[in-house]
Amino acid sequence: MKISILGAGLIGTPMAIDLAKDNEFKITLVDYDRSKLEKVKEYKNIIALEKDLSKKENIVDAIKDSDFVLNATPSSMGFETLKTVIENGKSVVDITFAEEDPRELSELAKSKNVTAIVDCGVAPGMSNLLAGYVNSILDKTENIEIYVGGLPQKREWPYEYKAVFAPSDVIEEYTRPARYIYNNETVVKEALSEAEIINFDEAGNLEAFNSDGLRSLLFNIDAPNKKEKTLRYPGHIEIMKILRETGFFSKNEIEVSGKKIKPLDFTSSLLFPQWEMKNEDRDITVMRVIVEGEKENKKVKYQYDLVDKYDEPSQTSSMARTTGYTATMAIRMLTNELYNKKGICPPEFIGENHTSVKFILGGLKERNINYNLKITE
Amino acid sequence: MKISILGAGLIGTPMAIDLAKDNEFKITLVDYDRSKLEKVKEYKNIIALEKDLSKKENIVDAIKDSDFVLNATPSSMGFETLKTVIENGKSVVDITFAEEDPRELSELAKSKNVTAIVDCGVAPGMSNLLAGYVNSILDKTENIEIYVGGLPQKREWPYEYKAVFAPSDVIEEYTRPARYIYNNETVVKEALSEAEIINFDEAGNLEAFNSDGLRSLLFNIDAPNKKEKTLRYPGHIEIMKILRETGFFSKNEIEVSGKKIKPLDFTSSLLFPQWEMKNEDRDITVMRVIVEGEKENKKVKYQYDLVDKYDEPSQTSSMARTTGYTATMAIRMLTNELYNKKGICPPEFIGENHTSVKFILGGLKERNINYNLKITE
Repeated sequence: MKISILGAGLIGTPMAIDLAKDNEFKITLVDYDRSKLEKVKEYKNIIALEKDLSKKENIVDAIKDSDFVLNATPSSMGFETLKTVIENGKSVVDITFAEEDPRELSELAKSKNVTAIVDCGVAPGMSNLLAGYVNSILDKTENIEIYVGGLPQKREWPYEYKAVFAPSDVIEEYTRPARYIYNNETVVKEALSEAEIINFDEAGNLEAFNSDGLRSLLFNIDAPNKKEKTLRYPGHIEIMKILRETGFFSKNEIEVSGKKIKPLDFTSSLLFPQWEMKNEDRDITVMRVIVEGEKENKKVKYQYDLVDKYDEPSQTSSMARTTGYTATMAIRMLTNELYNKKGICPPEFIGENHTSVKFILGGLKERNINYNLKITE
Repeated sequence: MKISILGAGLIGTPMAIDLAKDNEFKITLVDYDRSKLEKVKEYKNIIALEKDLSKKENIVDAIKDSDFVLNATPSSMGFETLKTVIENGKSVVDITFAEEDPRELSELAKSKNVTAIVDCGVAPGMSNLLAGYVNSILDKTENIEIYVGGLPQKREWPYEYKAVFAPSDVIEEYTRPARYIYNNETVVKEALSEAEIINFDEAGNLEAFNSDGLRSLLFNIDAPNKKEKTLRYPGHIEIMKILRETGFFSKNEIEVSGKKIKPLDFTSSLLFPQWEMKNEDRDITVMRVIVEGEKENKKVKYQYDLVDKYDEPSQTSSMARTTGYTATMAIRMLTNELYNKKGICPPEFIGENHTSVKFILGGLKERNINYNLKITE
């Protein structure tokens, strides 16, 4: 079975290494940056392919012999890459979290008889899958709440934060208005709003704020209340609010000493070095998914908690583990023919297929990624 | 009696108006900015003189007929202006708080038979005068502590601060290492350090941090412990520390989108509009001066507390009142021939002259600026 992984970034490479453990896979890991391909040299069943994926013909070439594709390109290239993969008739698991709406590719995917599982990371990803799963168990779903954050294990003044993905996307989370569903209505709140403290047994008190992370859950799953919040160590939000409200995140140029400058560019150049994950940094991923509703006329609450840490033996970040292994398990689900719905499939669709859910949760558990479920009535 | 006031800024103009109440004074208020001179048109004994004081010959011309001079030019021009005034043999009260050490002009002042009272505002100013006064009463001074802040009456998120003087000088307070005297040794700490909460009856809890404000008290008054701290509403310091430590106050150029930019310039252009005192803003000045020592073999503590507010009837800021009226009372002290020491005189020297202290405190009290003294043994 041949798998092409497009993008050898922070998550693409650990995905290749994970899939390489299964001898039946022949993996091609593709990136324009040769240095990023160095890490997989020792793996016999990984071919490192140096290609610039911003060129369509290179994507076509890279996937032409593949049975399945994993799209792990940067979010800015994600949508176009996905489109090319689908056009070429390849089923694909996508973790690019591109801004564009993948539903635009629905008809194309169906016409090409392709299964395209999008947003297939931890959140979006497992959050959707678990919400879809519980929704399929309940008679009626009333409320979905998702809390998620990627954090450094070491809290360092003042930000107590390291960016586990592109820092510019982090600031985007702090500025883009957040949408959630309250009483069947879409509510728009400013990012960083409605901060509240949430406690996790293993991670302590974290602060949750509104972010625009519901994505496909905004319209999929029929429930009157749905929201998504991002988690940070308490205090981070206040600093970000102050910077934002003072204009440090603005994209409108201002003139300083006769030079026109975009405040966001300036701020990024000071902030990003502080947020950079260094070799010695260790991360943690925290998520809580709550689904409440009715089953046989009884109120019931499902709560999944995840606290995952950097893996020392393999030197793999928790963000790569929780995001990447969700995607590699989804690939295995496809190669095992457990799931065959065609078209664009966000993970809440997979949630309806209990065999697939069990398969993915089981695979994650083998990798020591544990979604602990507590059901209360 | 003719008084020239150099500079018609936020403090220069209220000083002119205050002196104009005494019929024996003929005041000349000098500024290059005609709009600033508008306010004093209605006063018969104030002559508004439009002159650019950055030119030496204009200073000479503006003061040639004066008996006394008040120097209220911006701090950057303060020292050169003071020098010119002294060269021209005029006794002067100076509130420019220039960075240069006025002691350099000591010999010049003495040779010209001039009394030059420098740093003659609220702090430096009354703080020094009161410290000098108590020091002259005590047999031995052990400890001098000065806490001072100019604050907005209304606390507005996030900074809870409005600049009552040049905002660039405010940031200077947040970056320049702070010197104080501990156990007869000079200690250098970073600005904003050793934050502590201090309570004032009328202003509540304020946060005090080390700032480099001892000025002449670093070497005058023999006491083993001397320190000066600036007051802000709690929380402000933390934000300033974060901005400083992230590099937002740096004077070293960085390159952003191919343009070289000084972070401090950039930050200033975003922060200063937020810190600007608007017409509707009302300020408050808070100061505590503690002098501890021995008198007749008993431990004794003098504590002066000041909480002064914006004056509605005259629409005069508290910073202008507490700074400017100290200086105008010092001018009256000179015209009344109560003080005649020659040379550069920081206010701690005046503190030794109890008649002068009584005179100045009395004049301030008439203006409803009350230094409340509490003596404990």
